[in-house]
Parts: sequence; structure tokens; C-alpha cells
Amino acid sequence: MTASMRPLLLTPGPLTTSSQTRAALGRDWGSRDSDFTALSEGVRARLAALAGVAESHVAVPMPGSGTFAVEAAVQTLVPRSGKLLVLVNGAYGRRVTAMARRLGLAHAVLDVPEHQAIPPHAVAAELAADSAITDVMLVHCETTSGLLNPLEEIAACVQAAGRRLLVDAMSSFGAVPVNGARTPFTALIGSANKGLEGVPGLGFAIADKQHLATCAGNASSLSLDLHDQWQGFQSNGQWRFTPPVQVVAALSAALDQLEAEGGVAARHARYRRNCDALVRGMQAHGFRPFVDPALQAPVIVTFGIPPGGWFQFEAFYGFLHARGIVIYPGKLTHEPSFRIGCIGAIGPGDIARALQAVDAFMLAHGPAQPA
Amino acid sequence: MTASMRPLLLTPGPLTTSSQTRAALGRDWGSRDSDFTALSEGVRARLAALAGVAESHVAVPMPGSGTFAVEAAVQTLVPRSGKLLVLVNGAYGRRVTAMARRLGLAHAVLDVPEHQAIPPHAVAAELAADSAITDVMLVHCETTSGLLNPLEEIAACVQAAGRRLLVDAMSSFGAVPVNGARTPFTALIGSANKGLEGVPGLGFAIADKQHLATCAGNASSLSLDLHDQWQGFQSNGQWRFTPPVQVVAALSAALDQLEAEGGVAARHARYRRNCDALVRGMQAHGFRPFVDPALQAPVIVTFGIPPGGWFQFEAFYGFLHARGIVIYPGKLTHEPSFRIGCIGAIGPGDIARALQAVDAFMLAHGPAQPA
Repeated sequence: MTASMRPLLLTPGPLTTSSQTRAALGRDWGSRDSDFTALSEGVRARLAALAGVAESHVAVPMPGSGTFAVEAAVQTLVPRSGKLLVLVNGAYGRRVTAMARRLGLAHAVLDVPEHQAIPPHAVAAELAADSAITDVMLVHCETTSGLLNPLEEIAACVQAAGRRLLVDAMSSFGAVPVNGARTPFTALIGSANKGLEGVPGLGFAIADKQHLATCAGNASSLSLDLHDQWQGFQSNGQWRFTPPVQVVAALSAALDQLEAEGGVAARHARYRRNCDALVRGMQAHGFRPFVDPALQAPVIVTFGIPPGGWFQFEAFYGFLHARGIVIYPGKLTHEPSFRIGCIGAIGPGDIARALQAVDAFMLAHGPAQPA
Repeated sequence: MTASMRPLLLTPGPLTTSSQTRAALGRDWGSRDSDFTALSEGVRARLAALAGVAESHVAVPMPGSGTFAVEAAVQTLVPRSGKLLVLVNGAYGRRVTAMARRLGLAHAVLDVPEHQAIPPHAVAAELAADSAITDVMLVHCETTSGLLNPLEEIAACVQAAGRRLLVDAMSSFGAVPVNGARTPFTALIGSANKGLEGVPGLGFAIADKQHLATCAGNASSLSLDLHDQWQGFQSNGQWRFTPPVQVVAALSAALDQLEAEGGVAARHARYRRNCDALVRGMQAHGFRPFVDPALQAPVIVTFGIPPGGWFQFEAFYGFLHARGIVIYPGKLTHEPSFRIGCIGAIGPGDIARALQAVDAFMLAHGPAQPA
């Protein structure tokens, strides 16, 4: 890729952003100045509204990788005397388990194969069998595979069992509609740089205010304490520690564009069109999606490495990279694979451009055709 | 301030950045792509070299506020069975104490008044009296007051006592020369958006490799584990979790500019000129710096609120803000004060512009002059 080429990022993030979003990065802000606190308040209010919980919940931003926000939720929202059930069908669920282990937090794991959705009835059975479980963590879209877990059904099970649900919605928030009024959750955790189409460096938890108010002192990390971060905003509208001001400004601009596009439903429809076009084009060359179409989130698609030995991922990656297109390696435990994303400020023309590059690769490096 | 006005940020950060640094924010990067891993490697190598420890130490970046990097160092580098002596003469030292308390880490505190530098002989006495202490944390420039603590002398004491020194160099790194060859430290913690003149969202620890190699599993936080972050880079050059790619790119551009300026010595001289001009101009109106001139870091200056009741900080702040100039409230424990910074991509013209606005304020709102 030449330095001047605008990269097309077909990954789970960082993503291709719009020129308006990148332009919003280009100014300085005083982090304790009223201009910036007003910007922050607007972002926080819009995040809670996007999740349909503007009244009951509060959006608490957390600088850093999305993982920081997930860990902040685990550290803050699960009481030290609590027990967390982690629902696992990929690397991001396993990562939550690793966090709980590090923290010395009691936890149980419901582990299913990476091509299967988490079965709601199994969650109900776990909760019925173990009364010590206080909280459940679900990864909504497991970016490992691209699979969308059945959030609504699991939320209903968790509510029926009287437990709290934490949703890692990192790659789904903004891309897939979620409404807290229909899908009860204690907290939903997201990131600026996925479906919201901002840039990386900022995550957030949208947390139930009543529960959050009970969480003082839970976090063993000062930095990752969502309760204290919330209280900071409550007291004077300011961040406790220096925020990534340009990243916040870019998120604000990205939220403007999400509204202009018609909200999450319209964005979901665009991503779905991207995803369908991508899958059709790749299937035409014999690449097989790993996830059942009924479970495929319009976020990122995992393809198995085709048999026959002719396909080398590094060569494929390099061929696309030379044409300004960045794809992603696979992350499945048991199967060689690669991934191509379909989110970001991209549309049919971008997917077509990527598929043309795939066509060219197949012509040059594909398996020999029958005569 | 009007939306189109370029703000002049006379704060401890975020700072006024150069147009080249802001321009570097304006592109997308694939975080696992070789273009970006090469950029990251370059930044890491230059950070370690700036501290004079390119051979013995390694720079490990940590997304988030600078506080995240400080906490990452405390969590990772102090063994769970260790004891941390925190040297306190301001809010940032107290913050480290709060981190240790949260973590359940054994610690002692050497607390001196905010206008005094940490006395090296007192550090030596503490270390002699308490053999359980394994690590010492010093805040180099205490941004609470603007005071520069005697790093070299304290480093010598800590080395003589055979303990490890962690230096919170958040507001001093890049602004004040530090050379690990003369000033032995186990780790120095800094941030992209202070003396390096990048944008906020990224901190780092420059840590002794031999010690860091012994620190696996120390951190109770997965996100803040410097050892694992280092190991991730060692294994494949990649960040463990999604990095703030634009912030890293801006830091890379900012480091180019630091080199072009002539390195930290030249930057220190520019900041010193800014600081001297600021202090002279403010003293001409009767504002008194809080810190003894011999201890004043050329980073941020604390001024006491003048007596007589005529001075209202909010009015002063608002007057300057309307002219595009952002200053900072005070943070002293016992004395009303305010702060004006002198770091960032600013020079004599910017300080003169700020002082002209102060002149205008004094003319309009200053105490009545004798006839």
C-alpha cells in the first residue's frame, strides 16, 4: 500500500472512517473546559438513548481499548462477593474468563463450540443449578467467528432467574439494533470504533443507575472504576482523568452521522447489504462461510481456508494489501480461517472493489481450472 | 470562544498541538497491519532512546489516560509480596497511594507539604528504617504545584539502598532532560500528550527488561498488565488489544518534530523561556508564583489568588476563554490558586498573546489604582 492510498479496512476495527469523522480529530480541546464537557455530555446522552435506556441507565465512558471497558464493567458491576457466569463461544468470552481469574472473582463458564450460538435453555439451567451466580456476561457478537448470540432470549432467561446481565456489545453496538426496553440488561459495553464508526481509544458501559449506585469500592483498579468515573461526571461534568479529547470529538461527529443515516436500523441494513454482497462474491469462488447464515452478524465473516493446498493466507493478504485493502486473520481454535469485515463507513462500491481484488487474486493464484 | 478559533491551551494537557501532529490524526490504519506495527515499533524504540535506556529498558505503551499507565506500572512492577514507598507532595502522589490501597498492596507514604521538594535524605532514612520496602514511586514534576522534585538525588538514594525506583514523569518527560544512564530507574512512566506534544489517549512505561521479565502474573488487571503487553510485542510486534491508532500516529509525528527541534534539551530551553516570560508578565501585575523559582519546572506555574477580594477566578477564566485562551484551576490543598501552563507547541508569541489578555483583564477588572 502506498502512503497516499486511503486504506479500505475490512476488519473488526479500527475501521474505515468517514472524512467528516477524521476532520473532527483535527482540533485541540481543553479537557476541563466547558466546550469539551458539553461535547462529552452530548455523547453520553446519545449513547444511552441509542440503547433505548435514556431514563434508567447512564453511559460511562472509559478510555483505552474496548477490553478496558469490559474489564471495568466486570471489576465494578460484579460485587466482590458475587459470582459471574461467563457464556463462551469464542475468544472474547474466554477473555472475560481470564479477567475474572486474574481478579480472583468467583466465576463459572458455560462453554459451547465456536460455530454454535449460546443456547438460552442452557443458560437457564446453569442459573437454576447454581444459586451463587449473581451476574451473567454474554458476548453479543462473537468477533472470533462473526456469530450473533441470541441476546433477547438470554436476557429473558436471566431476568426470569433474577440475575444481572452484562452484555459485551463491542462489535454489535450501532450495527445491530438493541433496545433495553425489550431486552433487559444491567449493562451494555461498547466501543467508539465499531458500529458507531468513530476511531479507537474509547469504550463505554451503559449501566443501570440503580445498580451502579451500589458499586462504590468494588473495583480493585482505580483507573477502571466505572462508579467513580460516573460520580466524577455527576459532580462537575468532568472526566476524572485526562480523556482522549480528539477521540471523543470524533465519536460525537460519528454519532451525528449515525443519526443522519437514519439510526441503527438503517446502518444495520447497510451492513447487511455489505455482508450479503461479500458472502455471495466469496462463495462464487468457493470460499465457505464458517457461521450458519441464520447466525451470521452483519459485522465480520469468517471463511474457512479452502482445501487443496493452493491457498496461502499471507499471499492473499499481501495481494489485497498491495491494492489498499486490509483483511483480518482467523481466530478460530480448531480450524484455519480468515476474516473479512463488512462494517465501517463503507458501502456497495467498497465491497465491489474488494471482490474485484479477490477476482484478480483467484485469476492469478487460484486452483487450476478444469479444461 | 468561537468554534473556528484555534484554542491556546495553557494547561497541563491536553495541549496546543502543531498542525503537523493534528494532520497525522487524519488517516485510518489497520491495527494488525505491517504498516502500523512498523509505526508502533518506531515509536517504542524512540521513547526508550529519549530516556537514555535504549539497551536496558523497553517502552511498553498503555492506552488510556496517563493514570492508566501509572497504575499499570504499580500493578505490574511491584511484586504482590512487595511494599511500595510513595513520595507525596501533591495530588498525583496521593493518587498513587489510592491505587496501592485499592489493590491491597502494602505501602508506606512519605508526605511533605506541597511547596516543598521531596528531601532525598528523608527518602534514605525511610529506606534505612523499613527493610520491607521494595519499590519507591516518585512524581518527577508534581503538576499540582508545578514543582520539580530532585530526581537525580533521589535515584541515587534508592540505588544505594538497593531498591527499585518508579518515576511518574507524566508532565516532565520530553520537557525536562532525563538520562537513565546517570539517573538509574526501574521504570519511567510518561504520556503522549505532555512534553512530547502528541494528543491524549496513550501512556507508556519505559521499564527495565530484566525486572519486567520477572513480573508475569503480578497485575490483577488483565488490561493493565505491562508484562503481557510487552510479551505481545515480543511475540509478533502487535498490541494485545485494539490500540488508538490515530493517537499513535500523532505521537510518531510529534516525535519527528521533537527530533527536528533539537531533542529534549532544545525543547526544555523553549519551555523555560515560555515559563520565564509568563512569570515575569504575571508578576508585573502582582501575581505571585507559589513555587520557589529554584524548584519551578518549566511546565505549569501555580499562582496564588491575590488578596483583596477583587479577583474572581471564574471571571478571569471566562475573560481569557472568550479570547481563545484556556488556563487551569488550582489544585493545592490549603491555598486558593490557579495555574497557567507553558508547554505544548507554543512559543514567545503565544505567551505574549496570553499576557496581553491578562493586561486587558487587569485594566478592566483589576484592583483600583492609586490616584
